[in-house]
Amino acid sequence: MQDHTFLEDGHVTTPGGWRAAGVACGIRKSGRLDLALLVSDTPCTAAALFTTNKVKAAPLVYDQALLRRNPAGLRAVVVNSGIANACTGETGAAAVVTTAQAVQQYLNLPEDSVFVMSTGVIGMQLPLDRLTQGIAVGATHLGPGGGPDAAHAIMTTDTRPKYCAVAFELPSGGVVRIGGMAKGSGMIHPNMATMLCFLTSDATVTPAALDAALRYATDRSFNCISVDGDTSTNDTVLALANGHAGVAPISDIDSADGQAFQAALTAMCQRLAQEVVRDGEGVSRFVTLDVRGAASDTEAHQAAMTIARSPLVKTAMFGADANWGRVLCALGYSGAELELDRIVLYFNRLKVFEYGLPLDFDEQAARQLLDVPELHVEIDLGLGTGSARVWTCDLTYEYIRINAEYRT
Amino acid sequence: MQDHTFLEDGHVTTPGGWRAAGVACGIRKSGRLDLALLVSDTPCTAAALFTTNKVKAAPLVYDQALLRRNPAGLRAVVVNSGIANACTGETGAAAVVTTAQAVQQYLNLPEDSVFVMSTGVIGMQLPLDRLTQGIAVGATHLGPGGGPDAAHAIMTTDTRPKYCAVAFELPSGGVVRIGGMAKGSGMIHPNMATMLCFLTSDATVTPAALDAALRYATDRSFNCISVDGDTSTNDTVLALANGHAGVAPISDIDSADGQAFQAALTAMCQRLAQEVVRDGEGVSRFVTLDVRGAASDTEAHQAAMTIARSPLVKTAMFGADANWGRVLCALGYSGAELELDRIVLYFNRLKVFEYGLPLDFDEQAARQLLDVPELHVEIDLGLGTGSARVWTCDLTYEYIRINAEYRT
Repeated sequence: MQDHTFLEDGHVTTPGGWRAAGVACGIRKSGRLDLALLVSDTPCTAAALFTTNKVKAAPLVYDQALLRRNPAGLRAVVVNSGIANACTGETGAAAVVTTAQAVQQYLNLPEDSVFVMSTGVIGMQLPLDRLTQGIAVGATHLGPGGGPDAAHAIMTTDTRPKYCAVAFELPSGGVVRIGGMAKGSGMIHPNMATMLCFLTSDATVTPAALDAALRYATDRSFNCISVDGDTSTNDTVLALANGHAGVAPISDIDSADGQAFQAALTAMCQRLAQEVVRDGEGVSRFVTLDVRGAASDTEAHQAAMTIARSPLVKTAMFGADANWGRVLCALGYSGAELELDRIVLYFNRLKVFEYGLPLDFDEQAARQLLDVPELHVEIDLGLGTGSARVWTCDLTYEYIRINAEYRT
Repeated sequence: MQDHTFLEDGHVTTPGGWRAAGVACGIRKSGRLDLALLVSDTPCTAAALFTTNKVKAAPLVYDQALLRRNPAGLRAVVVNSGIANACTGETGAAAVVTTAQAVQQYLNLPEDSVFVMSTGVIGMQLPLDRLTQGIAVGATHLGPGGGPDAAHAIMTTDTRPKYCAVAFELPSGGVVRIGGMAKGSGMIHPNMATMLCFLTSDATVTPAALDAALRYATDRSFNCISVDGDTSTNDTVLALANGHAGVAPISDIDSADGQAFQAALTAMCQRLAQEVVRDGEGVSRFVTLDVRGAASDTEAHQAAMTIARSPLVKTAMFGADANWGRVLCALGYSGAELELDRIVLYFNRLKVFEYGLPLDFDEQAARQLLDVPELHVEIDLGLGTGSARVWTCDLTYEYIRINAEYRT
């Protein structure tokens, strides 16, 4: 995969033909930005992936039907934070329709052109008066520099906004851009990972090609991270392409242009997914887990995600403890094929276990080596050619504090 | 199931023909009891269930082969705490043989009559000199009152020993006893749950009937608990019956005597499993989770165990937060069939969610209701007749402290 240089201060309105705004409409008591509007000057093709949770929030049900009806005519996205509009029954479903219609009305957009997202507390109804007033205000504040405000407006327990953008040349000629933003930061586990992610582009991509690229990118990013193993009710990854760059259309993701687009989209998703983990609830250490030598890629992924989820591994990381025993234990119940005698294990390049036996190492030196913000755990199962890389974090006092006190 | 009255101060040597001792042999630095010996005056039938973790500690490999060779001739169990003898290679395997032989020698027992167990830190080798000296000392301290000392000697991060006993009459006549002890207290999740559990009886039971009863009991006890979702390398549940009571032999678990025995064994396992959860690492609240109205018992169990494992549910419990949204979220990704509109949810008998919508309740009153040591969550899925009961605990600061500092 080619290296992608991220644009300095790039965001969702960096691609051409996009405008955005962030508004404080009063859903969140603190007066913080809590409503994001994102609008394309021209109709977009769209692809989206939704949570696998059987309890789906009202906007997801609406959006799934919307994409089936109109996969190439989206114009805007509206997002509120503070209330998830999940487990809200018919009232919640009606609120989604009202929200979409308000955006269509204030921006003079056609029917079925607005994608709706929510994130926040489960089980509360949206205050529709405040929300529609917020939409009216947002409509007058839209601008090509509005991306960062929009990224702020979708935050819940996130401590910082997450956004970036890339520009790249298509093999057939012409430069296109992809912008993105995401929010975490608890209930982070596939499938999906982050609760919400938006990707905008000025490329021209058919819905089918966009869908293929988004699935590819998500499998290598948001489905490779875990903060706490909880898959939420609202997780959505949305990609929109408005064709503003005027380049050749991409209809086959296996074409040279298609591969270039998919690679850039994957790099964007990986960067945003990692940002979600880095800003996970209470995180003090970011952990990259590499499993190789597995019987298959699927088993490598399964093994890595099991380790990424183990509370005992995650608390050991917090304690800067080279506790390879807990890693082996999690490997052992992951379901992946393994032979203890073939396993080699490294923490930050320090080899601690080899071929069935622990190695002698200086515990104090190891603790110093691991008492850093970025940890790298490498496991070679010595069986085959399967490999996977996932990202996780430590489990800390602060995670407990946030989640024993915050009502999600 | 009949009610079983537990004997006051009952323990593993309460059944007839059993003696035990607990010794401080110096594996644990603190001078605490760390070696347990448990001996039957006559040969026992035996059944055991072992961890499903593919990384199995050395004694488990030995014991599995031992039970195949000699399922009706066991005489003793030796257990050390402090070192798990897991991931210890050929040296560890040889240490198990040496340990068993030392017990056979000091107690003048036949070959292949000693079951060996270990619990503690993974990856360290056992100090065989101290262990065999400890066995020599223990052999001279065996007594019918040694059960509590033995239960102390198998503890690791447990804060208290866990033991009990029942006596019951067989339908065909005669009283038999079952004693038991267990240790937790981290890495608690099926299959198996607690790391170690021992059940002794003076009934006469064939190996096959004992195995059937133990599987039945374990499925309803140790496989129904979760502290942290980690399945360890050493988990073992062992049942031994020495026939000392002189009652009619049980060879068919479906017979009246067999059913009485199985019911008592199940009651014992449930009590010990619950004790393990109550004494789980950092636990401040004990949670009973009932799922009913599921499509099947299997799905009910799956749903309940998923909720029992969710860090977000467990931190909410710690915060005395009636956070039904997190329970529904976990239900949603459990894989169990569900229809949101049919679900009814209670916290400590307070109905908080019904038929797709949250109910109005006083948050402060709810917090008071839940700020107690025992929580009861009831979920009716409204679909079928499947049900399951599992036991779990909250996730606290203290769990983090223990596991960021303790090397398991």
